[in-house]
Amino acid sequence: MNFGVIGYGYWGPNVVRNLTTLEGSQVLTIADLSPSARTRAQKAYPGITVSSDPMDVITSTEIDAVAVVSPVWTHYELAKAALQNGKHVFVEKPFTSNSAQGEELINLAGQKNLKIMVDHTFLFTGAVQKICQLLDEGTLGKLYYYDSTRVNLGLFQHDINVLWDLAPHDLSIMDFLLKATPEAIVATGQNHLSAYEDVAFMTLYFPEKVIAHINVNWLSPVKVRTTLIGGEKKMLVWNDLVADEKLKVYDRGVNITSQDGVYELLVNYRSGDMWAPQLGQVEALRQELAYFVDCIANGHDPINDGCAGLRVVKMLEAASESLSKRGTLVYL
Amino acid sequence: MNFGVIGYGYWGPNVVRNLTTLEGSQVLTIADLSPSARTRAQKAYPGITVSSDPMDVITSTEIDAVAVVSPVWTHYELAKAALQNGKHVFVEKPFTSNSAQGEELINLAGQKNLKIMVDHTFLFTGAVQKICQLLDEGTLGKLYYYDSTRVNLGLFQHDINVLWDLAPHDLSIMDFLLKATPEAIVATGQNHLSAYEDVAFMTLYFPEKVIAHINVNWLSPVKVRTTLIGGEKKMLVWNDLVADEKLKVYDRGVNITSQDGVYELLVNYRSGDMWAPQLGQVEALRQELAYFVDCIANGHDPINDGCAGLRVVKMLEAASESLSKRGTLVYL
Amino acid sequence: MNFGVIGYGYWGPNVVRNLTTLEGSQVLTIADLSPSARTRAQKAYPGITVSSDPMDVITSTEIDAVAVVSPVWTHYELAKAALQNGKHVFVEKPFTSNSAQGEELINLAGQKNLKIMVDHTFLFTGAVQKICQLLDEGTLGKLYYYDSTRVNLGLFQHDINVLWDLAPHDLSIMDFLLKATPEAIVATGQNHLSAYEDVAFMTLYFPEKVIAHINVNWLSPVKVRTTLIGGEKKMLVWNDLVADEKLKVYDRGVNITSQDGVYELLVNYRSGDMWAPQLGQVEALRQELAYFVDCIANGHDPINDGCAGLRVVKMLEAASESLSKRGTLVYL
Amino acid sequence: MNFGVIGYGYWGPNVVRNLTTLEGSQVLTIADLSPSARTRAQKAYPGITVSSDPMDVITSTEIDAVAVVSPVWTHYELAKAALQNGKHVFVEKPFTSNSAQGEELINLAGQKNLKIMVDHTFLFTGAVQKICQLLDEGTLGKLYYYDSTRVNLGLFQHDINVLWDLAPHDLSIMDFLLKATPEAIVATGQNHLSAYEDVAFMTLYFPEKVIAHINVNWLSPVKVRTTLIGGEKKMLVWNDLVADEKLKVYDRGVNITSQDGVYELLVNYRSGDMWAPQLGQVEALRQELAYFVDCIANGHDPINDGCAGLRVVKMLEAASESLSKRGTLVYL
Repeated sequence: MNFGVIGYGYWGPNVVRNLTTLEGSQVLTIADLSPSARTRAQKAYPGITVSSDPMDVITSTEIDAVAVVSPVWTHYELAKAALQNGKHVFVEKPFTSNSAQGEELINLAGQKNLKIMVDHTFLFTGAVQKICQLLDEGTLGKLYYYDSTRVNLGLFQHDINVLWDLAPHDLSIMDFLLKATPEAIVATGQNHLSAYEDVAFMTLYFPEKVIAHINVNWLSPVKVRTTLIGGEKKMLVWNDLVADEKLKVYDRGVNITSQDGVYELLVNYRSGDMWAPQLGQVEALRQELAYFVDCIANGHDPINDGCAGLRVVKMLEAASESLSKRGTLVYL
Repeated sequence: MNFGVIGYGYWGPNVVRNLTTLEGSQVLTIADLSPSARTRAQKAYPGITVSSDPMDVITSTEIDAVAVVSPVWTHYELAKAALQNGKHVFVEKPFTSNSAQGEELINLAGQKNLKIMVDHTFLFTGAVQKICQLLDEGTLGKLYYYDSTRVNLGLFQHDINVLWDLAPHDLSIMDFLLKATPEAIVATGQNHLSAYEDVAFMTLYFPEKVIAHINVNWLSPVKVRTTLIGGEKKMLVWNDLVADEKLKVYDRGVNITSQDGVYELLVNYRSGDMWAPQLGQVEALRQELAYFVDCIANGHDPINDGCAGLRVVKMLEAASESLSKRGTLVYL
Repeated sequence: MNFGVIGYGYWGPNVVRNLTTLEGSQVLTIADLSPSARTRAQKAYPGITVSSDPMDVITSTEIDAVAVVSPVWTHYELAKAALQNGKHVFVEKPFTSNSAQGEELINLAGQKNLKIMVDHTFLFTGAVQKICQLLDEGTLGKLYYYDSTRVNLGLFQHDINVLWDLAPHDLSIMDFLLKATPEAIVATGQNHLSAYEDVAFMTLYFPEKVIAHINVNWLSPVKVRTTLIGGEKKMLVWNDLVADEKLKVYDRGVNITSQDGVYELLVNYRSGDMWAPQLGQVEALRQELAYFVDCIANGHDPINDGCAGLRVVKMLEAASESLSKRGTLVYL
Repeated sequence: MNFGVIGYGYWGPNVVRNLTTLEGSQVLTIADLSPSARTRAQKAYPGITVSSDPMDVITSTEIDAVAVVSPVWTHYELAKAALQNGKHVFVEKPFTSNSAQGEELINLAGQKNLKIMVDHTFLFTGAVQKICQLLDEGTLGKLYYYDSTRVNLGLFQHDINVLWDLAPHDLSIMDFLLKATPEAIVATGQNHLSAYEDVAFMTLYFPEKVIAHINVNWLSPVKVRTTLIGGEKKMLVWNDLVADEKLKVYDRGVNITSQDGVYELLVNYRSGDMWAPQLGQVEALRQELAYFVDCIANGHDPINDGCAGLRVVKMLEAASESLSKRGTLVYL
């Protein structure tokens, strides 16, 4: 499968490295507007054509699929042109700048019988795969909450706020794990250094009393990537920054019973063993791209298709509306 | 100074231990409704009178000050009776169940020329004292945000939700450090095991774009007590659970400049040294009680007086209103 | 059972607190040479007799057992006098200053039918109890090594070096867990601030290729209490400084096979799950003292009797000899 | 400068990656005996000649310098042949299998006016550079000890024990930082799974009471890379496994004074701030290879020249002798 890659900034090199070393894929052309990015690409890959014009990728007759690894505001135009030219599309998260764009791309791909994959990389990590298994097998029991903290210093984006930059990771993971759509969203936040919020918080009310929360911040002195998930039977902590023991599953919980006619609740705390399952070690992006190649070859719709991307964009839109009102409840 | 202590459950023994070993204070009577609490108290302090009736404390002619270390819903009645009987009052946080009660107690104490101290213990920790100094000296520069995570498994309270249980710590610290009142508050959360929310999140909009956030949870498998404070010049992380290096001050930040006529923002990241100042090691409650004795003796109003307690209660009331609407912005 | 306690410095108050709150024991007399220690003792325990003369404890006709919580060089004299006066003896680690003293005390106790317990507190921690269980049940498989790091800043002792101060903890734990005597010992170290070594390292060669190592240091900027234990089937890390997850058991290991006629060894790494068992939470010293009371009452010899104390002293003597020669192998 | 690289196993790819992207160097030929290694090399670097015969590198007339990144037992033969063919040599640590080989290579290079650099990579890390500065500027004060723990699971080597595999890192760092030669060495250890020790401990007695200790282990369930360095004025902890704050400098220490005629030592503990200096972030191997190119171009002897490599080998030889006697003191 022949790929073209548009965008060789921060993430693009990782896409190219994997596509060039995977079985079954190769990169024919890389496009980037920045001369220095092109120089880096050419030095690292003497055998690949490097261009300043994304249309060289989009209109190439040899290219089967295009990876759009450029800023969010360019996704729609580039993906649309690629689809119109008969290319499958792998596009960075968030899928598009708004849901109308996302719906249009999904329809276009359907008409052309082409695949869209949105780069929800985390779905392909050993940690998320294992959490999914624990949820599906009922190990955690009924879910109570999902609480993610994703903060660090920078990288400030120039076209989107911190919610659109960092929250798509968590929203796509929730979408994958919870298999449910939130009923309503509340977002709060503040901008300090530009017109875009650099600190933001988001609460998602899911059905059946499941509550989710996301804390994102470009102004944190330390990097944190920690998610707590609480269930009736087990609870877990996922710390994505450690090399080992990223996932810790705790046999801890609370039982509350109230006896008839008795005022006091009887609270019983369960505090058992902790267990850190060994996780798959393969690079997530590599797994994801191999899966994309396989989906195209076999005509399967990826789990992280345009519809998944659209669901994330709709949550971001609701969050933006709430944020603009400093925290109103917005129903989806 | 002669003290009576009402309540010998979880926190009361710490109050008694300090009052009995401090210079200038002693405990004459301990009251608790629970027979087992009374047995523990009597075994540990054979020389102190132990009673099942709080009025034995409140009406004693030998007692100068009463420590109310009982559930929140009892604070108002007990503190009021103590004040009416001419006793100074040390009362657990949160001060009262609502602001009307708090205002009444403040007025009563004023009329009687008695002191109220609300047990905002954290103000007397080495960490908060040092943060206060860093803010006052301008080391952190203009403040951007205050973000606290305070989660653990239990202790479920029977009369209040997790916000009223855990957030008073953060609200009292903010009140002390920021020396400002929030303009508006948004709170979200969910109950899972009883009628009271066990997971909750709170955003406070302070003047001058300072944003604060509190994450409290009784259903976390792990205990976390971490606060991030971001300023223009320095940022800090306060981890209250470690024995050493509780406070880390980072010379990190971001400068953003936009040149006229230039589209791109110029973002400059500063990533310098980290510094963990040595903190005072004296037990915070001990400092606080010694300060209370001193305030009474010298007629000073404590920083954590009834007014400070009332400000915290007002924030909790606003948060409750927002929470009941699943996240509406509530102005103070 | 009536106790007298000699020594109310750093550790003595813990002994007294437990003996006064345990069922079945009480403290009649505390002796200490230091006036300030006596003042502290009397203030905390108005009902206990406090004396400057240890003979008030040793010769009391009401006292059944004496806790010797004084410097090492006083253990022999005080314990001997206590035994001669018909008292059972609980004595701090290390048991005595040399093995001849230890043997004499053991013989004396035997003649008098009295019990000696050496305060090897760690044997009564949840962590050591669990490790013992894992070893006894064969979970770890054949043992490879035991490696302990026990370093911090101070407390400098005035009569013994860092090996005699800190290593008894590890030696008593090894003695309990390995149920074997080392064949030979090598110790190295250096003094910097006094005549006594403040940094020292010790290797113990046990039978069947089990090797143990102890790293002790009074000049470390940070406190470390970490032990690694490697077995054929499982390996574990015990970090005694964390509140939770002190013990982590790893399903990790190495299999090496060499095929006939093939030069290369075939190395196979096993990297499975990690498991942190919930540990008993009762204070170790409390367990130990309750056990001592029980041993006396029922005539049982404690596992940490004089013989266990003597085995530790013999290891320390061998280490001292090796250390004096800067690291010669000394056979036991 | 044209390079040939012999060995494309674990470390070779890093050497090639840096040499191909640095200004002023390129790789013409890679040699490896393993077909799979050659396949990997050829796929990653289509423009580089890949060979199964190291002599293709050594005898090439276009190649100026040879990087020997192969097992220890091959270093001497390959480096010798390279020098004889007029090539500068960059060779993995440890330099050679014994000191006679090292001396011969140094002499040969001297006669041919060629440079030898031994790959003591850690000297070029931001951490070691900063420690060196702190020592040279006197920030730490008089040095007391150097204590390194370097343990993990595997990689078992087939031709050397764990001391020869892992300790060269610490020995080369000490050699660089302490600028002194140890007077004597004691090493202990044990083999469990092959003929080579997989657990070993090493004490080095340096002049002026400086003591060093190294703990290396191939059978640890967890990876540890921690070094403690204690000085009279400051002490530091270097944890090489964390992304940030690798180096923590503590203003902690002990003053001991003894007054005339007074029995007790007066011990005074200093417990001040901690400081984590920001460290250089450039990849150490990249710095080192750029420095090698510069040394060749300008005729400078590198700090990590053959003599430095030889000093490390001599320490390893003494350690081996001590280890074979289970811990005898061996003078250098």
